[in-house]
Amino acid sequence: MRVTETAALALASRLLEEHGAPRDHAALQARVLVTAEMKGHPSHGLSRLPRLVERMARGVVDPRTKGTQRWRADAALEVEGSAGFGPVVAMAAIERLAPHIPDLGIGLVVVRNANHLGMLAHYVEAIAALGLVGIALSSSEALVHPFGGTRAMLGTNPIAIGVPTAEDPLVLDLATSIVPMGRIHHHAATGRSIPEGWARDAAGKPTTDPRRAKAGAIAPFGGAKGYGLGIAIELLVAALAGSALAPEVHGTLDSQSPCNKGDVFILIEPSLAPGLPAQLSAYLDAVRASPSEVAGESILVPGDRARQRRAAAGRNGFEIDERLWDELNALSPSRILAFEGQRS
Amino acid sequence: MRVTETAALALASRLLEEHGAPRDHAALQARVLVTAEMKGHPSHGLSRLPRLVERMARGVVDPRTKGTQRWRADAALEVEGSAGFGPVVAMAAIERLAPHIPDLGIGLVVVRNANHLGMLAHYVEAIAALGLVGIALSSSEALVHPFGGTRAMLGTNPIAIGVPTAEDPLVLDLATSIVPMGRIHHHAATGRSIPEGWARDAAGKPTTDPRRAKAGAIAPFGGAKGYGLGIAIELLVAALAGSALAPEVHGTLDSQSPCNKGDVFILIEPSLAPGLPAQLSAYLDAVRASPSEVAGESILVPGDRARQRRAAAGRNGFEIDERLWDELNALSPSRILAFEGQRS
Repeated sequence: MRVTETAALALASRLLEEHGAPRDHAALQARVLVTAEMKGHPSHGLSRLPRLVERMARGVVDPRTKGTQRWRADAALEVEGSAGFGPVVAMAAIERLAPHIPDLGIGLVVVRNANHLGMLAHYVEAIAALGLVGIALSSSEALVHPFGGTRAMLGTNPIAIGVPTAEDPLVLDLATSIVPMGRIHHHAATGRSIPEGWARDAAGKPTTDPRRAKAGAIAPFGGAKGYGLGIAIELLVAALAGSALAPEVHGTLDSQSPCNKGDVFILIEPSLAPGLPAQLSAYLDAVRASPSEVAGESILVPGDRARQRRAAAGRNGFEIDERLWDELNALSPSRILAFEGQRS
Repeated sequence: MRVTETAALALASRLLEEHGAPRDHAALQARVLVTAEMKGHPSHGLSRLPRLVERMARGVVDPRTKGTQRWRADAALEVEGSAGFGPVVAMAAIERLAPHIPDLGIGLVVVRNANHLGMLAHYVEAIAALGLVGIALSSSEALVHPFGGTRAMLGTNPIAIGVPTAEDPLVLDLATSIVPMGRIHHHAATGRSIPEGWARDAAGKPTTDPRRAKAGAIAPFGGAKGYGLGIAIELLVAALAGSALAPEVHGTLDSQSPCNKGDVFILIEPSLAPGLPAQLSAYLDAVRASPSEVAGESILVPGDRARQRRAAAGRNGFEIDERLWDELNALSPSRILAFEGQRS
C-alpha cells in the first residue's frame, strides 16, 4: 500500500506520544524514521517502530530525556544518553554545540547510552543546513567479520559526511558492511537467497541462506580497505565516547537491553574563501556530467538519489508493507482509521 | 640491493641539505620517505626524491619554510604552506595545535599550497604518540573515475586514522582508489599487465595495459561506497582548506607546478575513562585471535603489517632498486661512496 508523508508522520508521532513521548521528541523520532522510508531505506524506517515501542514499554528507552550534557573541554560536549531516543539526544547536543562553531572552528559531540540514531544522513544534513561541515560516526552490535576472518567482531559502523555547497549539500551515509543487516532480514522475510560473498553462517562458512546469515556475520565492504575503515571507526567511537566495543554492544536490535553503543559528531566551519561554495557545486556538477560507463546513465553524487526519492515520496507518498501499517495502527490505543483513505 | 635505514636516511638527508634544506627539514622529509620504504610502500618512498630535488631546483618547493600559520578560530589553525615540504609544514602545525588539545578537546589544522605529505600514517602515528586520536585527509590530482564513470575526476584522496591504545595504536592509512597510481607505474616499469577492473584508458575504455592506464583513470575502491568516501573527502578537504579540487590540482606528480592540493588534520583527546586504552587493546587482540578464513593465517589490524615490516627493515635493511640508489648518489654533489659497503 502507499501512504503519504503526512499520514506516516502522524501515525508514528501519535504512537510514540501514546506510549509516553513528549510531542517534540515523538515528532523528531518519527521524522527520522519516515525520512528513511521516503529515501528508500525501509530497514531504517517504520519497521523499527514496534521494537521501539516495546523498548519504551520495558523501560529500556526513556522517551522524555535529552540526556545529560557536560562540556568535557572547550570544544567537546560529552553526553550521557540515559536511554533517550537517539535522534533526540543527538540533535539536542548538536544544537547546543553548533552556535559555538564560528568561534571554535571545530567542535565535538560524543554520546554514550542513547538509542539507535536511524540514518546518519539526518544529522549531517541538519549540520549542513547550518552552513557547517559535519561528520557522524556510530557503532553497533558485532555483525561484521574482519577481512580474512569469519566471525562477527565489528559493528556495521556507519560514517556520514555532509558538506554544504552553493546548492544541495553532498551527503554521504554508508555502513562499512557490504550490506545492512536489514537487507539480510528482508531477504529472509521474502524467502530469497543472498548473493555469494555477502555473509557467513554461525560456523563461519560462506552462505547464501539469509536465515543462516542472520546468525552469522556480514562481510565488510571493499575488502581490506573497507574492513580497515570499519575497525578504525569501531575504535575511534569507543575511544572518544567511552562506549562499548561491538562484542559487548546491545540494544540496537533487541527489545530488552539498554543500548550502550556510542555516537560521534564533528562540526566544522568551512573556509570562508569567497566563491568557494559555488566552486564546490560546479565541481559536483562536472562530476555528474562526466562520461558514464553505460550510455545515458548519469553519474550520481552522494545524496542525489536519496534527495530525488525523498522529493518523489513527498509528492506521491511511498510504498509500505500493509501488515506493518496494520501492526502500527494496532499498537496505537486510538487506532488511526483516518488514514485508511490514503491506501492505494 | 639492500640498504640500511641509517644509510638511506643519511643519503636522503644529505641530498636535501645539499639542495638547500635546513638540516631539521631535510631530516624530517627524509624520515617520511625512508619510513615508507621500510613499511613496503616504495611508491611513497625514495623514488620521490629525484622529482623533489628537481622541484627544489625549479623553485616550486621552498625547503626553508614551515608555512604561515594563522588561528582561524579558537580551535582551528589555518596554514598557507608557501611551497614548503609537506611533512615540515604539516608537522609544524600539528605541533603548534597539539598542546591546546587537552583544553579544547578537539582541534583542526588545514593546509593549502604545501607539497606532498608522503604516507599519511606518519602524521596520525605522531598524533597517537601524543596520546591523541588523529584523522588526516589529503587531496591530489584527478586520477580516479567516479563509480559508474570513466574519466578521472577525483583525487586518490587518502584518509588516515590513528587511535592510541594501551599497546600499539591502530593506524589506518588508505587511498580511496583501488590501487595507488604508483602501483600502475610500477607495473608499467616492469612490463607487467594490470588486473581487469583497476583502470581505464584516456578514452574511458577498460584496460589491462598499465601504460594506457597511466593516461586514464583508476577505479575507486569498494564500488559505490569507496567512490562515495573519495568524493566526500575531495569536497571536505576543499571546503575546509580552500584548496583546489582535483581537476585543477597540480604539483604532487610533476616537476614544474606549485602544489595546490589541501591537507586536513583533526586532533582529538580520547575519553579519559579508566581502563579504556586497555579495553581497546584487548579488543584488537580479540579481533587478531578471531577465526581466519584460511587456517593458520592470522587476522591483521590496520597498522600491524606496516609495523612488522618497519621493524624487520630496521634490523635487516630493505631492498631498493640499484638504479634508484645510484641516481640518488649521482644527484648528490658529494657522492656518498661511504654507503657502497651497505650493498648486499
